[in-house]
Amino acid sequence: MNAISQQETLLEAFSAEDFERVRILLGETHPSEIADLLESLPPRERETLWNLIAPALGGDVLSKVQDAVRSSLLGHMQPQEVAEATQDLQSDDAADILQDLPENVVARVLASMDAQNRDRLASILSYPEDSAGGLMNNDVVSIRADVSLDVVSRYLRQLGSIPEQTDNLMVVDRANLYLGVLPLADILTKKSDASVGETMIKEAGITADTAEHEVARIFEQRDWFSAGVVNHRGELLGRITVDDVVDVIQDEAEHTLRSMAGLGDDDMFAPVFTSAKRRAIWLGINLLTAFLASWVIGRFSDTIEHLVALAVLMPIVASMGGVAGSQTLTIAIRGIALGQISKSNSRILMMKEVAVGIFNGFIWATVVAVVVSVWFDDTSIGFIIGLAMIINLIVAAFAGALIPMTLNRFGVDPAIAGGVILTTVTDVVGFMTFLGLATLFLVN
Amino acid sequence: MNAISQQETLLEAFSAEDFERVRILLGETHPSEIADLLESLPPRERETLWNLIAPALGGDVLSKVQDAVRSSLLGHMQPQEVAEATQDLQSDDAADILQDLPENVVARVLASMDAQNRDRLASILSYPEDSAGGLMNNDVVSIRADVSLDVVSRYLRQLGSIPEQTDNLMVVDRANLYLGVLPLADILTKKSDASVGETMIKEAGITADTAEHEVARIFEQRDWFSAGVVNHRGELLGRITVDDVVDVIQDEAEHTLRSMAGLGDDDMFAPVFTSAKRRAIWLGINLLTAFLASWVIGRFSDTIEHLVALAVLMPIVASMGGVAGSQTLTIAIRGIALGQISKSNSRILMMKEVAVGIFNGFIWATVVAVVVSVWFDDTSIGFIIGLAMIINLIVAAFAGALIPMTLNRFGVDPAIAGGVILTTVTDVVGFMTFLGLATLFLVN
Repeated sequence: MNAISQQETLLEAFSAEDFERVRILLGETHPSEIADLLESLPPRERETLWNLIAPALGGDVLSKVQDAVRSSLLGHMQPQEVAEATQDLQSDDAADILQDLPENVVARVLASMDAQNRDRLASILSYPEDSAGGLMNNDVVSIRADVSLDVVSRYLRQLGSIPEQTDNLMVVDRANLYLGVLPLADILTKKSDASVGETMIKEAGITADTAEHEVARIFEQRDWFSAGVVNHRGELLGRITVDDVVDVIQDEAEHTLRSMAGLGDDDMFAPVFTSAKRRAIWLGINLLTAFLASWVIGRFSDTIEHLVALAVLMPIVASMGGVAGSQTLTIAIRGIALGQISKSNSRILMMKEVAVGIFNGFIWATVVAVVVSVWFDDTSIGFIIGLAMIINLIVAAFAGALIPMTLNRFGVDPAIAGGVILTTVTDVVGFMTFLGLATLFLVN
Repeated sequence: MNAISQQETLLEAFSAEDFERVRILLGETHPSEIADLLESLPPRERETLWNLIAPALGGDVLSKVQDAVRSSLLGHMQPQEVAEATQDLQSDDAADILQDLPENVVARVLASMDAQNRDRLASILSYPEDSAGGLMNNDVVSIRADVSLDVVSRYLRQLGSIPEQTDNLMVVDRANLYLGVLPLADILTKKSDASVGETMIKEAGITADTAEHEVARIFEQRDWFSAGVVNHRGELLGRITVDDVVDVIQDEAEHTLRSMAGLGDDDMFAPVFTSAKRRAIWLGINLLTAFLASWVIGRFSDTIEHLVALAVLMPIVASMGGVAGSQTLTIAIRGIALGQISKSNSRILMMKEVAVGIFNGFIWATVVAVVVSVWFDDTSIGFIIGLAMIINLIVAAFAGALIPMTLNRFGVDPAIAGGVILTTVTDVVGFMTFLGLATLFLVN
């Protein structure tokens, strides 16, 4: 049975409230698919399904659900239950879960763990969640550079098992300074009397305070499966595996998209009131800028009274500016997020965007001018709207590039504030040029 | 020297036109960092730097740059050069590059390859680029289930090396039917007289025609480093490694973002004319809908002539509807892309969004009504705009959820068409309700 029909069967049993069958089916379903199911259910049903999951699976499922969903599930759990659910997890996954809890609860969860679990978690929790230290787990097999591959082989067979998702062993010197990695493949294919030192791949290790988006960039560039994490002295602390990096990449792109839409970290099935509150801020800010645009229009009330066609046409200029500006803004925001925009090329990018603005400005200005001239049987109003359009599209390109770069320089996330500042600019400039030019040339 | 200062040194030497030094520095730089550099340069400089890269590195660099940048570089290369650049690459990376070329050029590139390279590429090129078959490479070590781990060890040592990024060997039966994977870690840690069959992890294999976003979803859920690809008979064809999946995930999120902004696959430093053309379509469609909105306003010219305040205030209602609708739209588009929205929960999602719309509608309607009543010293116009706002925010929530789901049902990508349909709805409804209500209650 494939994953999708398995999910459907499970949902059917769940809808029919055949909870005994749901329990059996859950036992046969991969924790990550259970996580998907939980995410796709509304809050009440989610809670019911969660309570049907066997405690042994709980931690695995928790480590797979989105942050917002996880918080809602953790909210109903006792510290003792959280401790039990997290004890069999990889240390980074357990840390992820704990980082979602209030500090006093974390202390109580740690207190109800055994000493070994507590220690391995404490070292990860000491780093920010969005740093290499927060991403790493400390389930690492490390070996010394001065032994032979044969010795390593015998050591591994003695261990009997190594942590899941191990593709490389970590090579350290006597002082635990990180030297590089020894691929398992090399132990199996190279001469067994070769030393680890001459076989291994030398690497610098990622320092624990590296930002997670930088970690993602390095993994993406190097096509790594795993990498060693070191402290500022170069001592091996743990390792990061690519599956956690995949989550970072997914989250980052998601973050840009949600920020640009003013959603914050709103969960699809969060309670109505929670969602409404998270989105209200954005609507409130937009209302302020809409009032600003209205105030600008209000300055030209007399002109509009003389020529109502202006009121009919003015949204066109503002709307086209908004769309053109958003295109530039999106390019610039992603360029900044992916590290492709630097001091050396920001000027060239700006010039290119303005050139695109001029180009599209002239094309659409001509189209609008012709249509409006015919529609209102008046070439002068066609000329005015065309001119306003050109000006607004150039300003839009300029603002779309300049706003995110400036916000970034001041340490503000351009994805969050960029859109609202941009549309304020394109609305105000759009209404002002069109109504202003009309006042100058048409009305008096 | 870390990667960033290395890049800066390189850029400095490049700006100073010290090309001898650039050549030396390029030799010390990772291909993926060279790719980043190329992406951040404008076209002419990009071409110059590209020509300084040693031919042996060319293929690796090409496989790392974005599609749009790659096409621009390939456009200047001879088939023979492409053949040389791709011959040392993993087969999936080589196939990616060839898939960007026109068909007649691909034929000539294949013709100038040796038979072995041609065969391994042809099998991948026979699958769509965005399927599991297009993602796979055929550099696979496969073993039989009925041998012992000891036999596998000796076989590997005989091979002397196995393909990079191998964490698992692929297990097949006599007929090459895929059975599952044998982790390298198990060969090193389990008893050497155990058979492959009893040690391996049984798995179904990804069929070659699976869509790449589905492949990404499976890898993300299972935390895999690599997985076997099979044909519809279950025969092993090759394997997919997680680094290619990371690219798929990155591209997908990027695609949603770019589609929603109407950018198409525009490259940051594409020539002005190319960028302008790609974005012009979106501006043209937006212009059509802006004219539609204008036409609606035009129906109420008489009303506006009587009461110019309406022209001043009408953008507020449309703009708030647009923002609220975009929030719902973004949630729905990502929910669809991530497979979290199904028939069973779409109704609940819609009801939730409408509830959020009602909630925020009432809050902001109250704020607007009060501000407008004071500003224009007229409670009836405040009441009208408040009422129009509530109606538009509810319609926006409804449309924001319904439009992407409907588009998806008809096989249209909601990220591309969703935004423009939504703003058409919120603009038209916004202007119509506000001006319509004003005509009914204020003017006559």
